Amino acid sequence: MTPIVSIIMGSTSDLPVMGKAAQLLDDFEIPFEINALSAHRTPAQVEEFASGAAARGIKVIIAAAGMAAALPGVIAANTTLPVIGVPIASTLGGMDALLAIVQMPPGIPVATVTINGGLNAALLAVEMLAIGDKRIADRLSEYKQSLSGKIVKANAELAEVKYKFKTN
Amino acid sequence: MTPIVSIIMGSTSDLPVMGKAAQLLDDFEIPFEINALSAHRTPAQVEEFASGAAARGIKVIIAAAGMAAALPGVIAANTTLPVIGVPIASTLGGMDALLAIVQMPPGIPVATVTINGGLNAALLAVEMLAIGDKRIADRLSEYKQSLSGKIVKANAELAEVKYKFKTN
Amino acid sequence: MTPIVSIIMGSTSDLPVMGKAAQLLDDFEIPFEINALSAHRTPAQVEEFASGAAARGIKVIIAAAGMAAALPGVIAANTTLPVIGVPIASTLGGMDALLAIVQMPPGIPVATVTINGGLNAALLAVEMLAIGDKRIADRLSEYKQSLSGKIVKANAELAEVKYKFKTN
Amino acid sequence: MTPIVSIIMGSTSDLPVMGKAAQLLDDFEIPFEINALSAHRTPAQVEEFASGAAARGIKVIIAAAGMAAALPGVIAANTTLPVIGVPIASTLGGMDALLAIVQMPPGIPVATVTINGGLNAALLAVEMLAIGDKRIADRLSEYKQSLSGKIVKANAELAEVKYKFKTN
Amino acid sequence: MTPIVSIIMGSTSDLPVMGKAAQLLDDFEIPFEINALSAHRTPAQVEEFASGAAARGIKVIIAAAGMAAALPGVIAANTTLPVIGVPIASTLGGMDALLAIVQMPPGIPVATVTINGGLNAALLAVEMLAIGDKRIADRLSEYKQSLSGKIVKANAELAEVKYKFKTN
Amino acid sequence: MTPIVSIIMGSTSDLPVMGKAAQLLDDFEIPFEINALSAHRTPAQVEEFASGAAARGIKVIIAAAGMAAALPGVIAANTTLPVIGVPIASTLGGMDALLAIVQMPPGIPVATVTINGGLNAALLAVEMLAIGDKRIADRLSEYKQSLSGKIVKANAELAEVKYKFKTN
Amino acid sequence: MTPIVSIIMGSTSDLPVMGKAAQLLDDFEIPFEINALSAHRTPAQVEEFASGAAARGIKVIIAAAGMAAALPGVIAANTTLPVIGVPIASTLGGMDALLAIVQMPPGIPVATVTINGGLNAALLAVEMLAIGDKRIADRLSEYKQSLSGKIVKANAELAEVKYKFKTN
Amino acid sequence: MTPIVSIIMGSTSDLPVMGKAAQLLDDFEIPFEINALSAHRTPAQVEEFASGAAARGIKVIIAAAGMAAALPGVIAANTTLPVIGVPIASTLGGMDALLAIVQMPPGIPVATVTINGGLNAALLAVEMLAIGDKRIADRLSEYKQSLSGKIVKANAELAEVKYKFKTN
Repeated sequence: MTPIVSIIMGSTSDLPVMGKAAQLLDDFEIPFEINALSAHRTPAQVEEFASGAAARGIKVIIAAAGMAAALPGVIAANTTLPVIGVPIASTLGGMDALLAIVQMPPGIPVATVTINGGLNAALLAVEMLAIGDKRIADRLSEYKQSLSGKIVKANAELAEVKYKFKTN
Repeated sequence: MTPIVSIIMGSTSDLPVMGKAAQLLDDFEIPFEINALSAHRTPAQVEEFASGAAARGIKVIIAAAGMAAALPGVIAANTTLPVIGVPIASTLGGMDALLAIVQMPPGIPVATVTINGGLNAALLAVEMLAIGDKRIADRLSEYKQSLSGKIVKANAELAEVKYKFKTN
Repeated sequence: MTPIVSIIMGSTSDLPVMGKAAQLLDDFEIPFEINALSAHRTPAQVEEFASGAAARGIKVIIAAAGMAAALPGVIAANTTLPVIGVPIASTLGGMDALLAIVQMPPGIPVATVTINGGLNAALLAVEMLAIGDKRIADRLSEYKQSLSGKIVKANAELAEVKYKFKTN
Repeated sequence: MTPIVSIIMGSTSDLPVMGKAAQLLDDFEIPFEINALSAHRTPAQVEEFASGAAARGIKVIIAAAGMAAALPGVIAANTTLPVIGVPIASTLGGMDALLAIVQMPPGIPVATVTINGGLNAALLAVEMLAIGDKRIADRLSEYKQSLSGKIVKANAELAEVKYKFKTN
Repeated sequence: MTPIVSIIMGSTSDLPVMGKAAQLLDDFEIPFEINALSAHRTPAQVEEFASGAAARGIKVIIAAAGMAAALPGVIAANTTLPVIGVPIASTLGGMDALLAIVQMPPGIPVATVTINGGLNAALLAVEMLAIGDKRIADRLSEYKQSLSGKIVKANAELAEVKYKFKTN
Repeated sequence: MTPIVSIIMGSTSDLPVMGKAAQLLDDFEIPFEINALSAHRTPAQVEEFASGAAARGIKVIIAAAGMAAALPGVIAANTTLPVIGVPIASTLGGMDALLAIVQMPPGIPVATVTINGGLNAALLAVEMLAIGDKRIADRLSEYKQSLSGKIVKANAELAEVKYKFKTN
Repeated sequence: MTPIVSIIMGSTSDLPVMGKAAQLLDDFEIPFEINALSAHRTPAQVEEFASGAAARGIKVIIAAAGMAAALPGVIAANTTLPVIGVPIASTLGGMDALLAIVQMPPGIPVATVTINGGLNAALLAVEMLAIGDKRIADRLSEYKQSLSGKIVKANAELAEVKYKFKTN
Repeated sequence: MTPIVSIIMGSTSDLPVMGKAAQLLDDFEIPFEINALSAHRTPAQVEEFASGAAARGIKVIIAAAGMAAALPGVIAANTTLPVIGVPIASTLGGMDALLAIVQMPPGIPVATVTINGGLNAALLAVEMLAIGDKRIADRLSEYKQSLSGKIVKANAELAEVKYKFKTN
């Protein structure tokens, strides 16, 4: 199937973070592609990729980057598609990548998510696609409701923990 | 017209920032609403607003907040619509609001933009709407191309500046 | 016994921190409950919990959260009970959770304690309860006096350390 | 009347912040005192004040301090009363005072509120007093409900703002 | 004369900072150009500029940028000329621009100077040019020696200050 | 009189901060000198100054510096006299100067005081001199006792403030 | 021998850092004592210790503390002896302790050294004692000269490293 | 061969970072030297080294330092050669070294690169040398083009990753 979400990362070392994005899109049966590109190592390809993405049918771009994380912003500069930026943590805990991604100048937004937040990036892409797609919107509702399951499970575990205290 | 973008702020003191969001949506002729809500002062209304927004026809929510900026995240918790968060700067330069908005847990993303980035929030909303709307996508392309105009104007001014240096 | 302190955490991964809170309350024979709730995953339950807590006899709420830690503030928004917030450290050393908990707007305070400070959260709850309860106040005095015991023990250890230096 | 809340500040330059605390307690008709003390300039008086406060009938202490803000912690070390700490901002935006107040070691909590958050400190004190006082608890409920009034007013102002946009 | 240093800024609002760079180059009689370009608003022109700069005779590029300051890094990605980056301070004191400029990945360095350090950027360019140009190297030596003049002047002023103290 | 404390600053723009150091030394009748030196603009003079200071009778050196504040550390590298460092705040609130002064490697300490803390630097010098000088030690005791006077005055002002509240 | 330097720490967990201070004083044959005290756990003992130290013959106090590190400042408030503060790193890398120690208000300086800088604290104490003690001053000169030995050793190691590169 | 680049580090513990600089220069067949020097432990040698480097044929200096990283700035103060600074990370993630290196005062720039960026420092040196050396410039072009190879390899790996997802 023609991919409609494009996941871009600078190196395969970002896979532990961005693999979660791929998995979620797969779970939602949203066709996607994953590629490596670098605003600093392959600038021409980034521009070519970004300016041609819409014509190829891509609707949302997810770009992960660490340190002086220019990739999401440079992609955003070359497309009118929404670009989601994922800051990757390194020596400064991700503060460098977060600021380099989120502090975009007026006119070229990047939708920044949690540091190392691959899953949230994919979910945000799904939410964007759901604006015009009832089927995705319905699955998204189910997914959001399932989030409480984690809390239900946590409460079951906590119920056992409580036994060890004398006052309860 | 029925609004499709909803701008939420905690107080009218955010208007200098969020007025730019309203103006841009108006320029794109995208019907929107502006309301004040607070995750901490009017929690019930926030939940009511967020859980009912999609049914009223809202497609994207923009929420601005400062300090312990819970508003965008709490709205995101109660809807499957994409939520755009705008950190408002106060005594710590906006670092508190930025972290309180962007560092969402897995499963509930907020699309965070520039500190005080009202304009970018609106543009991101426009980009999301353009995914399924050719007319908006076309206007967005025009808008993005017009951004270079600011640079053209800057170069004209710089051309005059250069006259004062002897070596040029 | 009916619990009068309610400990809330977002996940059982917070137990190493919040188990210390539970243990201290148990040592003070103060009936408490522990539950998992999330401002972002189970917003409706959080509101229900917070708005109903006082009527159930809860007198103090302790809420732990990491990252964009909205939980303590959202609980505080829905109750007039004192809410104690515990920032949980993750990739940024807990700075994100600290700012997201402490920087509450005027009108909705959260009593924020040390990053990962489960024990201090419980002690603060005990201090609040001791305002109107002579028995708890007396035990608290004993507890505070016992803190110097750790210093006495440290001095005993240091006395041995000193032997290895020639000038003493 | 015998004061039950004691507000302590290091200098009258903190009055713009801490005057809001005094005003709120006054509005709640809670008898209070305001004094200046310094952990660094008048350490003996701080210890005397803190260790004698409970016997004088004080039930909650609010302490404001900036920079290496030791005052709240040192007071907490000398009493079993709950101590509320207010970080005062100076050259580093209040980050120094915030960390110096909130990062207390296990055993001696300080209930830290918003940077420059005099009002929130007083409200937290009121919440603590309301644990055992139905009259205060009722007034607190009224106060919390009134917070939405600010939002109602903001919405009225925003309604006028909307007129200037053509698409609404 | 054909310029050998190229100063790039994103907006004429950077002129108070970058005008000092221009003035210093002018003082050293080093031909230079000043232009406005933006990695986010005019990405194609940036690539064209950077990849063609060497062939036009440019030997060093100075690029100033604020916030998510991608400009210096993107220029560096498209040229083998040395690129000097100047972080421009805004709401976070320049910390965002500093990290976005200096934290470049392996293989694409940017020579980062002081926040708002237009003068230092130009001096660094002069130092680079002086590697192969005896005349510039000699003027640079004179310039560096003149720096002590500011200290001489300061000492003269301090000599007067000392009169007012009785012990000296 | 032969100076025994030497105050060094990088520029006369530091006088508002360092004038307080001079005034305090003058009040204690401790002979001192004030000079301008720069680790970066006059490195040879700094080394000459530092390595010769002890022989001239200087006993303590106070050095103020901002930004990449190398001056105190470089002086410390060239003397065995105690060196007191005063971080001067600029665009980052003094965080850069603080870290550049305090984070000295093992073997070359700098006694770092408050950001912009000229007065504290001088007081610390006085404390060092008082180790071997009973007269200075006695005056220091008087000075420290006088610090409580500021608190007495603050309490007098607060006593008037209290009149306006109805509950007191 | 009567100790003239007093090393204070809050817990024996600080021994890896403060043991270096003890060792250096021992190497200089300066009599010292090591004790555990806590501004928050044993406030009365801290005051007693600090106000009595000078009379016992102590000339310099070294105090190590982490987190909301009030100990050095509280000791300084109760003595006219110079107090050296050592910030101990924990979850925030020592930034909390650094700010809590160094940002002292006017009138009560603490001589702050490197984060985890036990050795530097002791050396600074030695420098202070050397002001009035020729024998210590002479040993200090020897010590400072020996520091270059570490560099000589490093160069010997680097000489071997160079062999592996073909161009040298 | 006479070295034209000089790599300076404070200790052999910096070799894992600075060995990459040496290797890259070796790959480019640029003669270099590696030595250990410390602005704080061997200040006289630093001044001697820096002021004599140009006369010995050195054209670029690379200096690595951690914590209160004065070395690059002090070298820059004593030479007109370009100085490249490499911040080395320790307890604060390298933030201290970064600020201590990059925030140089007007008149004495240091070309600061990535935290722990040994490779980038060497590449920047190569770029500077390439200004006047066609052979180096050509090799640099080849090197920069080879950077895309890492991305090509990453894409090959990602192609395999994609097989596991059902939607692609």
